[in-house]
Amino acid sequence: MQQVSTTRSFGGEQQVWRHDSAATGTPMTFAIYIPDHEAGAKLPVLWWLSGLTCTHENAMTKGHYQQACAEHGIAFICPDTSPRGEDVPDDETYDFGQGAGFYVNATQDPWAKHFHMRRYVEEELPALVAEHFPLDMERQAITGHSMGGHGALTVSLRNQGRFRSTGAFSPIVSPLNCPWGEKALGGYLGDDRSAWREYDACALIEEGARLDHLRVEQGMADDFLVEQLKTHLLAEACEKAGMEADIRLHDGYDHSFFFISTFIADHIAWHAEHLKA
Amino acid sequence: MQQVSTTRSFGGEQQVWRHDSAATGTPMTFAIYIPDHEAGAKLPVLWWLSGLTCTHENAMTKGHYQQACAEHGIAFICPDTSPRGEDVPDDETYDFGQGAGFYVNATQDPWAKHFHMRRYVEEELPALVAEHFPLDMERQAITGHSMGGHGALTVSLRNQGRFRSTGAFSPIVSPLNCPWGEKALGGYLGDDRSAWREYDACALIEEGARLDHLRVEQGMADDFLVEQLKTHLLAEACEKAGMEADIRLHDGYDHSFFFISTFIADHIAWHAEHLKA
Repeated sequence: MQQVSTTRSFGGEQQVWRHDSAATGTPMTFAIYIPDHEAGAKLPVLWWLSGLTCTHENAMTKGHYQQACAEHGIAFICPDTSPRGEDVPDDETYDFGQGAGFYVNATQDPWAKHFHMRRYVEEELPALVAEHFPLDMERQAITGHSMGGHGALTVSLRNQGRFRSTGAFSPIVSPLNCPWGEKALGGYLGDDRSAWREYDACALIEEGARLDHLRVEQGMADDFLVEQLKTHLLAEACEKAGMEADIRLHDGYDHSFFFISTFIADHIAWHAEHLKA
Repeated sequence: MQQVSTTRSFGGEQQVWRHDSAATGTPMTFAIYIPDHEAGAKLPVLWWLSGLTCTHENAMTKGHYQQACAEHGIAFICPDTSPRGEDVPDDETYDFGQGAGFYVNATQDPWAKHFHMRRYVEEELPALVAEHFPLDMERQAITGHSMGGHGALTVSLRNQGRFRSTGAFSPIVSPLNCPWGEKALGGYLGDDRSAWREYDACALIEEGARLDHLRVEQGMADDFLVEQLKTHLLAEACEKAGMEADIRLHDGYDHSFFFISTFIADHIAWHAEHLKA
């Protein structure tokens, strides 16, 4: 593992690292923010899964999580959204292939060789960071944006008890029921839609998975809300399951990092309550 | 003038506008953040001049000024750093030509036709925004980064009394005495170095220009500090002139937006004191 950069930000270090991933068979890059802390301390961890087209860098430069993480003493990790490289299959559209891994383990060629982002964010990267950074892996939380909101919800639902709190900004709540999801899961997993259900937050809840603390932030001027995100499907699934969900609707806000940066401090403070409880 | 976009951010509107500029003879784009305000209110204005390679967009997405501007009720304007377009001369290096206007009125061909960023930021754009937005032009302040820190200092020193407070992050304090400055001023203004002096903050102070309230933020891990920025020359010029200058040195911080975003809220709060006095 090699350090790409380290930059001082809000009394902490915003670092970027690169390593060879066994899960994807490619080099992978991730960002990690480590607030200053007492020698020997182990920091709680907040994972951020990014949306379509993003790398490790977008949230790092535009998300403005550093201030709240420094305040609460939380490490913040941003993985990339897919394997990348000339030898990695790609698609010319923005919502499939490189930059659009959808946090699945692909089973269809040519994607099955490298596109194992589920294994990467669920297993490989957590083990790697636990080894190399001052992290308390007993205190993890997860959130993300759009495709990464889908990732945060589904990773947490499949790994119940791992995350003390689960959040999402503008998540795709049901890939089974939107064009982005149909295209991605169909492409990576094939036509058998029963295989998609472990990558669908609503389906996982329907099948019995539960989260203790769930908060969703959704802008009401989000151009993707009606066709792709369909927040109401998550609200309905939670209600049907008797699972508490704090779905917060923000008037006037869109799908951009202007929305995320406006509410990230409050969102992180909420995770901090659970991480430090 | 046409609106390119408007996006909700921190309880205000982050807008982008495009207009035909007489100063540059090209279309120009700028960003303006307007916090929510009472009907009929006129907001104080903080100008932000950006650094090399930037457009109107960099500070808007990475600078994170919106939160503090919303809190203090200040409008924030980010002009572009040069004229742009296929018909506009350019240079293949990053520090000259498009994206590197240095806030001068060029006198040398081929730059003299379009590169009048001094006139644009000093005259044309202030008149335009005063006409179209709810701004109180009696309460203006100015700041910027790197090349734009140079711009903020020199615009303010040449227009004494216009700005209640003047700031700069990591400014080029003396283009007469650094490679970036020698290249840009030589290229835009020609070999007669006496013509450069009105674009050199230290020379302007030496010649009698004064600022009432000046604050400079400088990272001590800034790779450009020794060769290009030379903050000590400004400190020396101010001391010699008996002019107060609050030059704040920040250990460990570099030249990036991670530095800017860390200290922007505090920097804006300082401007707000003077804008609201």
